[in-house]
Amino acid sequence: MADVVEKRLREYFKKNAFRPGDPIPKEMELAEALQVSRNVVREALSRLKMLGMIESKKKRGMILSEPDIFGGFERVLDPLILEQQTLKDLFELRLVLELGLADLIFLRKTDKDIQDLEKIVSKSTNINKTSFKVKNEIAFHGKLYEMTGNHTIMRFQTLLMPIFEYVVAEEEKQGAAYSISRITHIDLLEILKNGSAGQFKEAMRAHLSPHFERLI
Amino acid sequence: MADVVEKRLREYFKKNAFRPGDPIPKEMELAEALQVSRNVVREALSRLKMLGMIESKKKRGMILSEPDIFGGFERVLDPLILEQQTLKDLFELRLVLELGLADLIFLRKTDKDIQDLEKIVSKSTNINKTSFKVKNEIAFHGKLYEMTGNHTIMRFQTLLMPIFEYVVAEEEKQGAAYSISRITHIDLLEILKNGSAGQFKEAMRAHLSPHFERLI
Repeated sequence: MADVVEKRLREYFKKNAFRPGDPIPKEMELAEALQVSRNVVREALSRLKMLGMIESKKKRGMILSEPDIFGGFERVLDPLILEQQTLKDLFELRLVLELGLADLIFLRKTDKDIQDLEKIVSKSTNINKTSFKVKNEIAFHGKLYEMTGNHTIMRFQTLLMPIFEYVVAEEEKQGAAYSISRITHIDLLEILKNGSAGQFKEAMRAHLSPHFERLI
Repeated sequence: MADVVEKRLREYFKKNAFRPGDPIPKEMELAEALQVSRNVVREALSRLKMLGMIESKKKRGMILSEPDIFGGFERVLDPLILEQQTLKDLFELRLVLELGLADLIFLRKTDKDIQDLEKIVSKSTNINKTSFKVKNEIAFHGKLYEMTGNHTIMRFQTLLMPIFEYVVAEEEKQGAAYSISRITHIDLLEILKNGSAGQFKEAMRAHLSPHFERLI
């Protein structure tokens, strides 16, 4: 029942062209408009609150608000409850993103970005401990996402990262050996400074080849 | 209150290592375990049902289930309630995906896939009506996603498509003129048949250049 009412509520807001900031009718009025009980309306409203589509404001009652676009996604990204195939799919999705970023990065990179990457790369040369290596890896690739200037893509990658690491760790547990990339962060940085987006794509593909080797 | 309880419920399932298919405690027991009212538990459970994390089974009560990974995302993807910046970000995210697909496509393409693309391309040559052109465009690019064999990526693109089209339509309303790609679907298909992933990336970038021209 809440499924139906939740859907009807979303359609109701759409049909009446509610926009973020608009006050929405009270629970009781909605119950009357949709001909259902107040309890069911409350339950459906609670779902929309979780998605950030509705906010309760002091004195103003409820208003429609701009939803958290990945709020629901974030809540379900638990490796323990997702199927193996879905985890594998998400692993590949992150590879696809990583390979598709080049054009946005070259469109928007700044001198400051290059300096930041240089700092990250310089820190990596003296690292032996695995946990530091992983952190450095995350810092370098995270910075590349940041350089796109696209906060939605940045957030998406941040959410996918733990799944990516989980899949890698699981495979290593099962004895999968990762070969070492012939292209390093230093090479990628050099191309960002003096190369083209096309060269960067090719180099990134080579950098990620240990992951591609194990896809079928 | 439901926010807190919803979070605690998710943590509770995680801590107790519940897996899809496992029966979960009754509403009343959960209310006792979390020391909150039954109404609040019901509300929180309803939210998790929306995400597909919980299912009600006849005779078996509630069980934990594999969530719909993009269920929440799908519900909030309404251009009317998202900020302009978010819409623009999602537009770019789809471009990034499109540019990043090449390696998966070349890894998994089959003769049947090529035949399907040939059919789509052959239908496009005699088309003049805009609505048919758009449909053909969607069919061609949709087929490329299908060729990755990755259902999560396919679903994600299907969800992003209406947002992508909305952004293009809005820009055209505001007088933005789209130039015509020098690389056509026929060229892309030829590379899929006889070329390399690297060539495909370059060609896809050129095919999408009308969209890139208007990004800053």
